[in-house]
Amino acid sequence: MTTSTQNPTKAQGDELREQVLAAARRAREAAAELALATRDAKDALLHAMADALVRRAPEILAANERDVAAARESGMAEGLVDRLSLSTDRIAAMADGLRTVAGLPDPVGEVVRGQVLPNGLQLQQVRVPLGVVGIVYEGRPNVTADAAGLTLKSGNAVLLRGSSSAENSNAVLVSILSDVVAEHGLPADAVQLLPCHDRASVKHLITARGLVDVVIPRGGAGLISAVVEQATVPAIETGVGNCHVYVDAQADADTALRILLNSKARRVSVCNAAENLLVHADIADEFLPKALAELNSAGVTVHGDERVVAVGGPNVVPATEEDWDTEYLSADIAVAVVESLPAAVEHIRTHGSGHTEAIVTNDVRAARRFTAQVDAAAVMVNASTAFTDGGEFGMGAEIGISTQKLHARGPMGLPELTSTKWLAFGDGHVRGAGAPAPTSCPNA
Amino acid sequence: MTTSTQNPTKAQGDELREQVLAAARRAREAAAELALATRDAKDALLHAMADALVRRAPEILAANERDVAAARESGMAEGLVDRLSLSTDRIAAMADGLRTVAGLPDPVGEVVRGQVLPNGLQLQQVRVPLGVVGIVYEGRPNVTADAAGLTLKSGNAVLLRGSSSAENSNAVLVSILSDVVAEHGLPADAVQLLPCHDRASVKHLITARGLVDVVIPRGGAGLISAVVEQATVPAIETGVGNCHVYVDAQADADTALRILLNSKARRVSVCNAAENLLVHADIADEFLPKALAELNSAGVTVHGDERVVAVGGPNVVPATEEDWDTEYLSADIAVAVVESLPAAVEHIRTHGSGHTEAIVTNDVRAARRFTAQVDAAAVMVNASTAFTDGGEFGMGAEIGISTQKLHARGPMGLPELTSTKWLAFGDGHVRGAGAPAPTSCPNA
Repeated sequence: MTTSTQNPTKAQGDELREQVLAAARRAREAAAELALATRDAKDALLHAMADALVRRAPEILAANERDVAAARESGMAEGLVDRLSLSTDRIAAMADGLRTVAGLPDPVGEVVRGQVLPNGLQLQQVRVPLGVVGIVYEGRPNVTADAAGLTLKSGNAVLLRGSSSAENSNAVLVSILSDVVAEHGLPADAVQLLPCHDRASVKHLITARGLVDVVIPRGGAGLISAVVEQATVPAIETGVGNCHVYVDAQADADTALRILLNSKARRVSVCNAAENLLVHADIADEFLPKALAELNSAGVTVHGDERVVAVGGPNVVPATEEDWDTEYLSADIAVAVVESLPAAVEHIRTHGSGHTEAIVTNDVRAARRFTAQVDAAAVMVNASTAFTDGGEFGMGAEIGISTQKLHARGPMGLPELTSTKWLAFGDGHVRGAGAPAPTSCPNA
Repeated sequence: MTTSTQNPTKAQGDELREQVLAAARRAREAAAELALATRDAKDALLHAMADALVRRAPEILAANERDVAAARESGMAEGLVDRLSLSTDRIAAMADGLRTVAGLPDPVGEVVRGQVLPNGLQLQQVRVPLGVVGIVYEGRPNVTADAAGLTLKSGNAVLLRGSSSAENSNAVLVSILSDVVAEHGLPADAVQLLPCHDRASVKHLITARGLVDVVIPRGGAGLISAVVEQATVPAIETGVGNCHVYVDAQADADTALRILLNSKARRVSVCNAAENLLVHADIADEFLPKALAELNSAGVTVHGDERVVAVGGPNVVPATEEDWDTEYLSADIAVAVVESLPAAVEHIRTHGSGHTEAIVTNDVRAARRFTAQVDAAAVMVNASTAFTDGGEFGMGAEIGISTQKLHARGPMGLPELTSTKWLAFGDGHVRGAGAPAPTSCPNA
């Protein structure tokens, strides 16, 4: 993320803060209207957004060309330039994404639980939108349409804070999307783009308590950590995956090889890729040579502990302490031999990021123990780590993969973008004088 | 909350930090064991804790006497001294609270959803403990037993940071409770009391990312706000209730009076008490004189807008701008006349704290609109605000009443003290090479 403003003056700083807070206030007003939109209205909106993106593709591509040219000029790495670049196909994919979200069930209004209390009061817990959702992301402009679709469908207003490298692309995208919102009789402020040239706009967004209901960072570990640490509005930690495949003593070696290769090498740059292999000592002599050779064929470098290095191979280098904690996102894997299942669990407890952990075993007790003791968003038994994905889990789409324990854990779809509200319907119901106060009331 | 340490040296500060982090690390180890405890084991533990509190009441009372004497000496207000004071009856009530929690269903292990994916992968989302829960609270020692019972039953370890005024009481209580934990073969570190003489211990607790999974402040608005703003671990905002009763044009006046009086005057010091009355202009002439007179009989001072002051009465004073935002927790109420239901909704949106809001009406459309547009943890139709309470809602007990939208909203019982985990059971399942990456992956 590049910033073009250095040392802004105090007055500029105050102006930026007011700009962000004013956007948040408008979003809050928009959210109040959006919360009442019917599913029909929201689905029609998303389809119209998809159509508008396709129809106005030339504008989007022209703006994107300016971003790409500026990025190349600033010396951006080609991999990042590729993520920034749009094409007719990529715009069509964005439009398809919006249509997919339109086809998903609307979580708003779902009755989560309900009962009639002994005194006759009718009680319901219903899903309601969160309100205003802030998304902080990096240089991929498709996140703009994706995040807007998911938040609007779940009845929320969205404040988008993208990378300055995608400034022109995002501005055109948001202008197209909010035009469509307004054409559908809904508040255009439901989708807004925040200033992206000063990191301070992120800070103002994530500290706007009372205006912003939740902030979701979508990006690398540095971005996520900065947002979560500085936010005073509730934040959801997403995406960092230091995932392990543990091959138990009772594993079938061929199954283990297939799962290892798929977990590691199917796509190396994604958060659900395995970054570590743990092998039970009892199966190491049989399994390790095959695993190292297969990883070598797949072009994967192995960062091994002493016993792995002893087996050796053209792709084996000694692991450093840092390797166990590294999310490579590349064709690398850290490999260790462990003495027991508890040792594997302990290794994962110490080094894992709580994303996805897999065991390969035919021992029911080992599977039971591993699933109970490993504390992660997803635990796989005899299956690839690559399955942790909102699409695979049947959610249709995801706004992120939460690695925290509060609110949502694992892939976050539409229901995870909602809160709940208790509704009680009475007939003049009052509470008895003798009834106790809520036990948690500080002043009761 | 009093602090006895002023300007601690840097070395003392580092030592305190290490002390809190070491406690959190031990709690994390304890949590890993506790997560595997069966319901039978946890219920037996809670019953034994209750028995131990009653059996060792003399020790608790002796320690509490020292706290109470010190509090009186320091000039603590009698109301606060009362909250600090324990008696045989209050200890019995703590024990009963633990037994009640023992009788509640165990949320851990509940299968929230489950399905077999099209590829045959068996997917389950199951409830798991949060892990380590931090509770920051004020001078009521009964919170110690209450919070310990709820967190242990839900499989969590708890770090208790109580007030220094209750230091001796809390130390004895926690020592009794952790003795019982150890006697039951579970880790004694599952219940720990943190140092309470320096506010910095709160800061170290709420910034222990990676060690503490959630922090819940239980106390007044100042404590809650300080914790939520400074925390880098996820926090849950609880308890502040600036609740409204709105009397609609179509209300039955007698029903409205009954609900108003119950909401305001049943107990004035609790978070679910009404602090505001909004009256539709069309019913004001009929309703206001009766309401002001009844509030006067109940000893409630009315802070009224111009039209309310014009009606007058011995208990009516003009409202200031601050009154609309004030959680009195006393025999006071702010009263305004509004021109319409939308004006009432707008007033509540501007001044409410998102706790509990009530409408009194016989108009179905008004009820529908109010419940849809008012954004609060609980919305009551023709019922008292006093019903927002975990006990009343059938949860059996509550750790707090969340006024935020993330994770839990409204009374928080045992399920709200859990997270979830996805479990996938396969038979060597791997993902196709052509399948897309998770859409949210920053590097995909």
